[in-house]
Amino acid sequence: MMESRISLITLGVRNLELERGFYESLGWSGTQPDPTICFFQANGLVFGLWTELGGYGAPGIELAYNVRSPEEVVGLLEEAVAAGGTLVRAAAVMDWGGTSGAFADPEGYVWEVAHNPGWSIGSDGSVTM
Amino acid sequence: MMESRISLITLGVRNLELERGFYESLGWSGTQPDPTICFFQANGLVFGLWTELGGYGAPGIELAYNVRSPEEVVGLLEEAVAAGGTLVRAAAVMDWGGTSGAFADPEGYVWEVAHNPGWSIGSDGSVTM
Repeated sequence: MMESRISLITLGVRNLELERGFYESLGWSGTQPDPTICFFQANGLVFGLWTELGGYGAPGIELAYNVRSPEEVVGLLEEAVAAGGTLVRAAAVMDWGGTSGAFADPEGYVWEVAHNPGWSIGSDGSVTM
Repeated sequence: MMESRISLITLGVRNLELERGFYESLGWSGTQPDPTICFFQANGLVFGLWTELGGYGAPGIELAYNVRSPEEVVGLLEEAVAAGGTLVRAAAVMDWGGTSGAFADPEGYVWEVAHNPGWSIGSDGSVTM
């Protein structure tokens, strides 16, 4: 069971400073946990700009669905494959400390499925950094 | 001023029935206002699958930001251009009854800016169909 919600939308960017500056000119406020990525808290989800997106995912944009435990990552990937999706990356512990895997929907759009111990998920599914 | 929120994420699809079925197999529930599009209510935003996306926008995915009045569409497009974005479509009344225009960010990602009289926007920016 996948709740109908989206946790993170990430745009692959070449010039992070330029892109971050554009959204900040419009009033958004970003934070950079490292030099490759900038996160903006949005309405119950996070919007990201990342210089290292690529090699998997829909061209330029990746969606992510965050779950409440590392075990749920594995379970949801299995459900997605059973529903007709394709496994893109098996669940694994990532260097940023969370657990992540990915599936593609029938037309190839990739969803990362992640457990991030640093982000909280509200009862309504909203994600807060 | 653009609030840091996202109203709609639309994936361009070839086989709407297949794609809708995949997300419904995972537990989502879609509605089709017409045969070309399927909307799913998500966490304060709407997720769409559309067979006619194309010709503009990031490959395969378009983001949208909904505003509370038709006049705000024009104003936000002007602000985006002033911030370094590019006008993609000027504000116009659409055949579905709303007002819509679009800008691209500095790396070409397109945001539709729309006023949809049929969707409500909460005080926190959440969009409900």
